[in-house]
Amino acid sequence: MFLAGERVRGRGRTVHALDPRTGKTLEPGYALGGAEDVDRAATAAAAAFRTFRRTTPEARAAFLDTIAATLQDRGEAVVARVQQETGIPEVRVRGELTRTANQLRLFAGVLRDGSATGVRIEPALPQRKPLPRPDLRQRRVPIGPVAVFGASNFPLAFSVAGGDTAAALAAGCPVVVKAHTSHPGTSELVGAVIAEAATEHGLPAGVFSLVFGDGREVGAALAAHPAIAAVGFTGSRSGGTALVAVAQARPVPIPVYAEMSSTNPVVLLPGALRERGAVIGEGLVASLTTSAGQLCTNPGLVLLVEGEGSGEFLESAAAAVRATPAAPMLSQAVGRAYREGVEALRTHPAVIEVATGQEDTSLAVPGTAHLFTTTAEAYATDEALHAEVFGATSLVVRVPAVADLHPLLEALEGQLTATVHVGEGDTATAAALVPVLEETVGRIVVNGWPTGVDVGAAIVHGGPFPATSDARSTSVGTLAIERFLRPVAYQDVPAGLLPAELRD
Amino acid sequence: MFLAGERVRGRGRTVHALDPRTGKTLEPGYALGGAEDVDRAATAAAAAFRTFRRTTPEARAAFLDTIAATLQDRGEAVVARVQQETGIPEVRVRGELTRTANQLRLFAGVLRDGSATGVRIEPALPQRKPLPRPDLRQRRVPIGPVAVFGASNFPLAFSVAGGDTAAALAAGCPVVVKAHTSHPGTSELVGAVIAEAATEHGLPAGVFSLVFGDGREVGAALAAHPAIAAVGFTGSRSGGTALVAVAQARPVPIPVYAEMSSTNPVVLLPGALRERGAVIGEGLVASLTTSAGQLCTNPGLVLLVEGEGSGEFLESAAAAVRATPAAPMLSQAVGRAYREGVEALRTHPAVIEVATGQEDTSLAVPGTAHLFTTTAEAYATDEALHAEVFGATSLVVRVPAVADLHPLLEALEGQLTATVHVGEGDTATAAALVPVLEETVGRIVVNGWPTGVDVGAAIVHGGPFPATSDARSTSVGTLAIERFLRPVAYQDVPAGLLPAELRD
Repeated sequence: MFLAGERVRGRGRTVHALDPRTGKTLEPGYALGGAEDVDRAATAAAAAFRTFRRTTPEARAAFLDTIAATLQDRGEAVVARVQQETGIPEVRVRGELTRTANQLRLFAGVLRDGSATGVRIEPALPQRKPLPRPDLRQRRVPIGPVAVFGASNFPLAFSVAGGDTAAALAAGCPVVVKAHTSHPGTSELVGAVIAEAATEHGLPAGVFSLVFGDGREVGAALAAHPAIAAVGFTGSRSGGTALVAVAQARPVPIPVYAEMSSTNPVVLLPGALRERGAVIGEGLVASLTTSAGQLCTNPGLVLLVEGEGSGEFLESAAAAVRATPAAPMLSQAVGRAYREGVEALRTHPAVIEVATGQEDTSLAVPGTAHLFTTTAEAYATDEALHAEVFGATSLVVRVPAVADLHPLLEALEGQLTATVHVGEGDTATAAALVPVLEETVGRIVVNGWPTGVDVGAAIVHGGPFPATSDARSTSVGTLAIERFLRPVAYQDVPAGLLPAELRD
Repeated sequence: MFLAGERVRGRGRTVHALDPRTGKTLEPGYALGGAEDVDRAATAAAAAFRTFRRTTPEARAAFLDTIAATLQDRGEAVVARVQQETGIPEVRVRGELTRTANQLRLFAGVLRDGSATGVRIEPALPQRKPLPRPDLRQRRVPIGPVAVFGASNFPLAFSVAGGDTAAALAAGCPVVVKAHTSHPGTSELVGAVIAEAATEHGLPAGVFSLVFGDGREVGAALAAHPAIAAVGFTGSRSGGTALVAVAQARPVPIPVYAEMSSTNPVVLLPGALRERGAVIGEGLVASLTTSAGQLCTNPGLVLLVEGEGSGEFLESAAAAVRATPAAPMLSQAVGRAYREGVEALRTHPAVIEVATGQEDTSLAVPGTAHLFTTTAEAYATDEALHAEVFGATSLVVRVPAVADLHPLLEALEGQLTATVHVGEGDTATAAALVPVLEETVGRIVVNGWPTGVDVGAAIVHGGPFPATSDARSTSVGTLAIERFLRPVAYQDVPAGLLPAELRD
């Protein structure tokens, strides 16, 4: 662990990462920390906050740039370790490393262009009737130390130096990361990069800590610690809602940004199916099976309007699934949950398995693709069919007619994304669907696929519960910095006492 | 009550407002509603949302303008009823009516200038390597039907057509108001204005409802109703935290914006006291006794650095308190809580009562001003002294030296405001205090007073818990519209399907 700049070995049990391709245990072992380590990290973060929040935007931007550059300098070691610990193919790991570095630089850019300062200035109007107006100026200030929970499926981009860490540091908030225990070696490598960058930039050591520990003990202790002001989390629905409960039970409740669960409905309209049903089938499976389906935006639900082209879609998708090799899943736990989810669909009386991907018994944690179908009636009446199956499995709901889409979509829980495929003659139908989708999702995609989240200024990676615990935010893109800021007004504060960005 | 445009009489017990000046019961009686009325209002709001959210900004602006104009047209009746039900003096009621109308017009302006749409556009970059960038566009959409809980101390500006209602309607969210039972007649008059304006503008009737009812029953049922997407509340800490608990226990938790409790510390620095100790004393009491001290931003805590001028401050403040006539308090409940709060200070072993205002036994609910002092040590060690006493009572903490301010300020709970009085030689001290205050408050005032909240673009009326349940927001000013909006991204959505504000 890194506790305020110091390398510390926990006093709890030792965990080893597992190579999910081979089942081989990886060295070294990592001893888990406990509540006392959380306390040390959080207390140091609170002390560091007083200094860190007053650094200039340029100082924080330079800090983020150093983290990005060093991460890439050490790319070979990081990429190798990520592959060992997660089984993610090299090309995707390299892409994720670049994305993670670019994400840090994106927030450096936000600091340099000042776009997140939230400055609003209303000069005094001493002559205003009936009452003079005071001089009022507003800006955003950092919220305080942030607890970040690393996700297993993005060991770089949603982990130790991931989006939440980058956004929090950019905001001026110290960060305490709870590493995901499925990639402790990666976490150590990345944690060292941040801790060293803090030293290099003369920042207080408490600006960054990394703890290893059990979620129910160390994770809960972190979310409950009085020095922590906000939580960023990406993971399961049960994990996220547990953290929200901890945060709400505190004497001083704090915001929790938990990204949890989404089936990412894909709506296939008649015109699109008629034009290119088979192509859409291939596209679906390509999106579905990326990273063994272990993506938050994985298309786990298809609403297929039956008619011309719907058969071609299903045949093509089924063929593509059958041709898909098994891929290693991230961990035993993820693999187990996936098998249970698949089994629940397979044994459901209203569900038909239309295709199964290739199996590979040589993998320690194999992920095999699956394609299921069910009826609109079954989907409408059985909530069990709405649950996310995290992995390369999609449930195709056969929808008799376009008119049947509305009640199905209106009954959906909150989602990260919804995708609509439109073709000739579909525009009116799609135009009526967009407002319905806006009520339920964070991002609407037309004629594309939900996987592959672009990191920029306009992206939203969020959505209504249970997609996230707070739909007012995004975990990807520049808007994410607002998670860790709040507004403060300055009334008649003389220039000498005003923060620099609020002076005339 | 108004349930989706229809006047409905509740089936519960009948309540009468009380004139707190005379103790006289006011006619008519208002029969309270129950859970069935909440269900009807919330269900109608959900149905109306589908239409209302798609109205143009101009249509909603015109709706708000009509409410503002009609409220002022009916000003005489409203002002008379408010005075009867609250005992607030006419001049303040007239000011509050103007403020309420202007607040509605302010949000109409926000709709017309488009400043809250949150538009972000990133055009496609098909040549980008390694992956092309899709066309991504972001805007804010309304969150859904909003429950608004009226406050007793601002029967117009924080009630039926108050800030939360104006912000929610501007955002495109239908509103269900739970009226405060201390001013039912005012609520009826104002509710009629909104309901009629909705009809006049051809809006669905469910866009506005007004229910009367008990907080624990009807209020909780409203916050728990599945159709409600957010809650705005101004009131007590116990009321606010109870609503947060209800909202968090829902299957789908929702945001609660509760403004609850603040002592609004005023820091008096040596230079200011030396220059104008007596003037500051008078200013404090003028702010303290406005509206019988029943303001959220009432200066209930003074940190007085002892030295030259501190005696003059205390003498002048004490004299001003003694000269203050008793004023009617809002209701029996508010008067009772105030007397209990005063009694707790009066009987506290470390607290000295230095001045008592005039009493007036002719008032049914008299509010008498009080000034107390205590020591820095007592304040630092006894949390009981940190509690808000809602009324014209201030506790002056005698602080031996400037250096003792920091630990006292750092130990404060979240506050709506902090005020610092600075004079010659105080700048360095004040500069060191500003960052400390930024961590704890929503608004910093220099050489002024916290009461008198200006309604504009730069104000923040909010702050860390327990000042509010959500420090990321404000309940006053244009930024409040963001309470009821969330971001949605549109990826590769063709122009014909894009919302108007996102087209090229």
